[in-house]
Amino acid sequence: MNQHSTHVNRAPHIYERWLVAKLMRTAGSPPIRFQLWNSDVIEPYGQPARFTVHLADPKALYALVTNPNLAFGDLYSAGRLDIEGDLPELMDALYRAIHQARQQWPRWLEALWRNHAPRSAGLSEARENIHHHYDLGNDFYRLWLDQAEMQYTCAYYERPDLSLEQAQLAKLEHVCRKLRLKPGMTVVEAGCGWGGLARYMARNYGVHVHAYNISREQVTYARKQARKHGLDSLIDYIEDDYRNIEGQYDAFVSIGMLEHVGKENYLALSELIKRSLKPNGMALIHSIGRNRPMLMNAWIEKRIFPGAYPPSIGEIMAICEHSDFSVLDVENLRLHYDLTLSAWMERFDAEEEAISKMYDAHFTRAWRMYLAGSIAAFRAGSLQLFQVVFTHGNNNRLPATRQDLYSFPAAPKNV
Amino acid sequence: MNQHSTHVNRAPHIYERWLVAKLMRTAGSPPIRFQLWNSDVIEPYGQPARFTVHLADPKALYALVTNPNLAFGDLYSAGRLDIEGDLPELMDALYRAIHQARQQWPRWLEALWRNHAPRSAGLSEARENIHHHYDLGNDFYRLWLDQAEMQYTCAYYERPDLSLEQAQLAKLEHVCRKLRLKPGMTVVEAGCGWGGLARYMARNYGVHVHAYNISREQVTYARKQARKHGLDSLIDYIEDDYRNIEGQYDAFVSIGMLEHVGKENYLALSELIKRSLKPNGMALIHSIGRNRPMLMNAWIEKRIFPGAYPPSIGEIMAICEHSDFSVLDVENLRLHYDLTLSAWMERFDAEEEAISKMYDAHFTRAWRMYLAGSIAAFRAGSLQLFQVVFTHGNNNRLPATRQDLYSFPAAPKNV
Repeated sequence: MNQHSTHVNRAPHIYERWLVAKLMRTAGSPPIRFQLWNSDVIEPYGQPARFTVHLADPKALYALVTNPNLAFGDLYSAGRLDIEGDLPELMDALYRAIHQARQQWPRWLEALWRNHAPRSAGLSEARENIHHHYDLGNDFYRLWLDQAEMQYTCAYYERPDLSLEQAQLAKLEHVCRKLRLKPGMTVVEAGCGWGGLARYMARNYGVHVHAYNISREQVTYARKQARKHGLDSLIDYIEDDYRNIEGQYDAFVSIGMLEHVGKENYLALSELIKRSLKPNGMALIHSIGRNRPMLMNAWIEKRIFPGAYPPSIGEIMAICEHSDFSVLDVENLRLHYDLTLSAWMERFDAEEEAISKMYDAHFTRAWRMYLAGSIAAFRAGSLQLFQVVFTHGNNNRLPATRQDLYSFPAAPKNV
Repeated sequence: MNQHSTHVNRAPHIYERWLVAKLMRTAGSPPIRFQLWNSDVIEPYGQPARFTVHLADPKALYALVTNPNLAFGDLYSAGRLDIEGDLPELMDALYRAIHQARQQWPRWLEALWRNHAPRSAGLSEARENIHHHYDLGNDFYRLWLDQAEMQYTCAYYERPDLSLEQAQLAKLEHVCRKLRLKPGMTVVEAGCGWGGLARYMARNYGVHVHAYNISREQVTYARKQARKHGLDSLIDYIEDDYRNIEGQYDAFVSIGMLEHVGKENYLALSELIKRSLKPNGMALIHSIGRNRPMLMNAWIEKRIFPGAYPPSIGEIMAICEHSDFSVLDVENLRLHYDLTLSAWMERFDAEEEAISKMYDAHFTRAWRMYLAGSIAAFRAGSLQLFQVVFTHGNNNRLPATRQDLYSFPAAPKNV
């Protein structure tokens, strides 16, 4: 139990025990045992417990009952709620139970549980939202992302035994193949992170890349890396909002940015891609998504990713339909994100001490919850990972099949 | 010029010449020369003519001006409008010009041109709609469809030099691979045509198939073929509406039926698939579609395919979102349908005399227009061909990648 615990020892009231039981029934009776502040135990209903949740004080219980969606993460972060067992597995079991149960919920309960509407993503809010998360510091992300190209998006495990580094490079290769890049082509990238895709494209495909990003720390890092590897003549890293993209390109690519764009900006994005793409140009959007429109998990939206919204394919289609784009290919890499996040979490846990020194224990626990919750969401199918390839509606210079994507392994042999 | 021509020889009035010029400007000035009944010629505006359209009489001109969308096909069918040049190429040029031009049309013109809302597809209307087209007679379709499995849907030209027979068998193989069939599995097919896919699956994958179709002629043919090839123990051809599908299966497949389902029936179809698919079952829908919601071409809907409606991916997503399906894969095979239809039209033209004897010249010309117009629609991008693969939202037994679809050629070597 964490240093923040308040060490209450009084016996729980009978109605406090009842509240826990009621909460668990409402959540679909997941296989979770509750251990209260005085060590009293409440067993799950109908099945043996696979996990134990410790509640440090009565106030934690009241917070959990009042707003479980938000309080579970907050209490865990504060160390007032702790768990025995594998956190991603517990979250997976919890999500599945709730997913089942909420189909029977009365409307008032659904309304209580309701996730947050994402904050707006105007130019200045976008900068703030992105700063909140992505400018935590390159040193922080370097501790647990891949050592190859610092990819903070879903990797491509074309074989399950790949290392994180191999799988991230395979992702970059898979994306390049889908765009059918050829030497001398020009590419614009909206939201380039630490610039790894741009460098991969320049190095392996000899293309010219304009890569946009509003995170100053990331752009600084990206430029330094490009210079170091002699790729700066092929790449322009531009510290600016994607909405200010200029010029026409053979390819438009955006990996893990759509989640932060905001639905109200989709049609503008559509028009931007329309004018940025040459007549035979190819576009690829890679984004976390949903099987159907749903708001973002409230805790993630509030504490981790302000402004984030994972769209359904139907919602992404608004971008394509508005500009008469022809969708060529949609691939769902959902379980690849389970593998990616699990690799991240393993490294994160190994660096727990270093991270707690950089920030504090509360930050470390919040991020553990975020990683574990994300693993669970991809496993339970409440999040998806879509790669959508499209082109102008009148472009007939199309790849005949997708055979070329699979002609040889995408991952390098040794990294 | 066809026997129906009325051979008017009077000189056209000046306003009749003006009407033709006006019509062509409204249609975006395609490279088409008009030759009127007395051999007067009106050249296209701004570019040399690549095609000549003959109008046999003044009434044909008035019909064309009043309702070009419907009259062009009707007049061609009646032989009162004829063309010099390649019909699919003319239609392609026409579609592209109109597509460009209509972005500037005033609202009243857009309303005049407006395509028909499809007729309803209730149980009895569906039977009538399908009878209208598919019960024209097996002897008719046998003349110009592939000799392998009588596939009246888009083939898969994994190589452009495949024969129609090879490409159709490659399509069946591609579909089986996407469904990840294994011996002993059970499959339900909604809308099975002449039963070729069911036989392919039974023969090559050892699966049990329940195949539904409301076209009596097709079902009779399908049963005979299954008996002939000793596959009748593995296949049940059921003469019934897809809405009466019963049981649970490892795979749900529907090739070229969604176009006839009607948007008002999508949610019921979604629920049907939900209850027909085992927990780890895979579903595949193959359908003609659009880049954005648009009504069917009026002439095709009225004369050839009553009740037809090609949906956008966004509209197809209504089926997936309603039942929390997870979309795994979308592939667009648009230009494969150009190749397929071109192969059909070549065979159709070679059998023109035989077909005119079976029906009459009007029928033959109407079908030439339908085939040519369809070729043009796929070339110009006003029609798409989507294959959508999906599964239950909580199914985690997923193929890791799509590599297995491409591990060896889908087409047989010699057919």
